[in-house]
Amino acid sequence: MNAPSANTLGANAISAYSISAAVPLETAAQLEETLRHIGATRYHSLHPFHKLLHGGKLNKGQVQAWALNRYYYQSTIPIKDAVVISRFRDRATRVEWRHRIEDHDGDTGAEGGIERWLKLTEGLGLDSAYVESTEGILPATRFAVEAYVHFVRDRTPLEAIASSLTELFAPNLHEERISGMLKHYNFVNPDIMSYFSRRLTQAPRDAGFALDYVKQHASTPAERRAVCNALIFKTNVLWVQLDALYHAYVDGHVPPGAFVPAK
Amino acid sequence: MNAPSANTLGANAISAYSISAAVPLETAAQLEETLRHIGATRYHSLHPFHKLLHGGKLNKGQVQAWALNRYYYQSTIPIKDAVVISRFRDRATRVEWRHRIEDHDGDTGAEGGIERWLKLTEGLGLDSAYVESTEGILPATRFAVEAYVHFVRDRTPLEAIASSLTELFAPNLHEERISGMLKHYNFVNPDIMSYFSRRLTQAPRDAGFALDYVKQHASTPAERRAVCNALIFKTNVLWVQLDALYHAYVDGHVPPGAFVPAK
Repeated sequence: MNAPSANTLGANAISAYSISAAVPLETAAQLEETLRHIGATRYHSLHPFHKLLHGGKLNKGQVQAWALNRYYYQSTIPIKDAVVISRFRDRATRVEWRHRIEDHDGDTGAEGGIERWLKLTEGLGLDSAYVESTEGILPATRFAVEAYVHFVRDRTPLEAIASSLTELFAPNLHEERISGMLKHYNFVNPDIMSYFSRRLTQAPRDAGFALDYVKQHASTPAERRAVCNALIFKTNVLWVQLDALYHAYVDGHVPPGAFVPAK
Repeated sequence: MNAPSANTLGANAISAYSISAAVPLETAAQLEETLRHIGATRYHSLHPFHKLLHGGKLNKGQVQAWALNRYYYQSTIPIKDAVVISRFRDRATRVEWRHRIEDHDGDTGAEGGIERWLKLTEGLGLDSAYVESTEGILPATRFAVEAYVHFVRDRTPLEAIASSLTELFAPNLHEERISGMLKHYNFVNPDIMSYFSRRLTQAPRDAGFALDYVKQHASTPAERRAVCNALIFKTNVLWVQLDALYHAYVDGHVPPGAFVPAK
């Protein structure tokens, strides 16, 4: 019989918030195996809303609602990353992390991820001033995204870095999204999808650094467990946003004051 | 024609997060009128999940899920109130606010609101150790409740007090809940509903203080607007929790690792 692992323990390996004490985390290799198991079972690529989005099952208003809400997440990432940088007295880590802010904010005369996201929302017919105001997003989106900023501020620097590890699983999702949305929606074209095509090269570099970092710096089973739980936390941040979109715009329970697509 | 007010402006008076600039807030009386309008249009007494809960339309597992999740809110309130107290150098305000912690935490040999809530979850058949672990609650519950704690820490002391003003509207909701649940559910009895009967006397006293406080201390239209927006924020904290319960336990989309009622 094999030794227990996150894989062989199946559904019992992970609660809503934490990895089971039965999952061995004695080595960096076991840590990586467990992180990949969390990704395979909890990443939002598995969420029903993404199945609808990528399979062409949503109408334009529903895609607008997704892009509008996701803008709040995207535009908060450089704030989150500035907080991460602020946690490190170690100059080398700050230097390594800094380009993430630039990836999203761009530079004078150079567009970044946020501008590319606004090309998406504009291409979908949303007014950019309305998108940037974030007045129409779902309260659940706001709470989940702000929880991410608070997490990297309040937890250990190791956990702050670990919470970025969802990037390990992003490229597959983005490839599925680009091809699915281009194929199924006549209101989508490659130009407005440039955010995702650009992330195909950015995310693996970033995820590689973060994975190496946690494997090297988590030196006890307790620290490896904290790393796993930080990744679980982050999968919850992403999952909650899609649950809220599904409830509001697929099941039709839009909360008071939030965006209502035009008929 | 009447002057504009939150009432006459109807659906345009409030966005998801803020009161319209068209709503006049020149006086304390206009502030109170607007706060009561927010309560009448945004308090979670209006939420479809409460209609089901109070109308006897939920099964026992769904009522368990509600009580389990709401425990996280209840047990966080004294932490929130300790943060509120920490915002005031003014001794008199600290003294006035302090009893709220005791209302929920109780004292040596005297039960408080949290213990009364555990009588409810126990009476519904939930294991108290599981409830207190909060491991099975919905991530959206956690994010919304933690947003409340962060709000009273990060905003002005005036906004921190204003965010408690939902208590103005709680007694009617609690009366509806007590009578509705006792009437419709054979697994509910007056003893396990003691949390709500006790709040019928506690909440009005607290809400009266907070309302007087904001009417006296919000001395400009901008401050009155901030008070209104703090109340809107708080209604979102409550609404998001019920949206998440509805999505998970009425529509059946329980997120990974969260509580699943026994068959």
